[in-house]
Amino acid sequence: MDSTTNFNVLAHDCPSRAIMQRLGEKWTPLVLLLLADGPLRFSMLRQRISTVTPKVLTQTLRTLERDGLVSRKVTEQVPIRVDYELTELGASLLTAMDAIRLWSEQHAASVLAAREDYDWGSLET
Amino acid sequence: MDSTTNFNVLAHDCPSRAIMQRLGEKWTPLVLLLLADGPLRFSMLRQRISTVTPKVLTQTLRTLERDGLVSRKVTEQVPIRVDYELTELGASLLTAMDAIRLWSEQHAASVLAAREDYDWGSLET
Repeated sequence: MDSTTNFNVLAHDCPSRAIMQRLGEKWTPLVLLLLADGPLRFSMLRQRISTVTPKVLTQTLRTLERDGLVSRKVTEQVPIRVDYELTELGASLLTAMDAIRLWSEQHAASVLAAREDYDWGSLET
Repeated sequence: MDSTTNFNVLAHDCPSRAIMQRLGEKWTPLVLLLLADGPLRFSMLRQRISTVTPKVLTQTLRTLERDGLVSRKVTEQVPIRVDYELTELGASLLTAMDAIRLWSEQHAASVLAAREDYDWGSLET
């Protein structure tokens, strides 16, 4: 595990801030959560996410690969087979990402209720 | 705490998925983390984040307010004073968000090293 001494997301020029922001990019949490159970092929990832375009999914996977969170394994066959899996570094993020997922599922009803209150309140003023 | 029975971020049409994606929006984690220690005025939030425009910070806060995570307190004085603070719902997210922050700080060096490897590897092929 790296030292925390030199990194602070609250410092605007610290690279850890941009890394934290990247972890929240639209499809990143879903890709990491889907790979939690083992490697998946591109087509399966796309099918499981379902609302992502191939172009955007490819970009997301490239970024995750460059950041060392996901590895890409090419099997030479016809047609060529490409699997994506979490690296050790990627797997180390799962506990935190799963806590975000769990919060979203456990509190979705509260968020939806808050939105309804807010939108009704806006109509009254 | 809400039930988890009906929400699943892996289902593409489940509202919890969009809620999870919203939690990762660029300035959302930083605003929540900055409000962890207590209420802050708009100007102070802006100063602490430093690289956000007033327009985008306002949009972020409106979204957080609508989602029930942040509340806005207006004090009638000259000039008018506006403070933002976490609601109970917003505070319930802090443990998970702090785990993401901690991971980003603890593993920033590994991510930066992975990027360097990836970029050098790309040059060689």
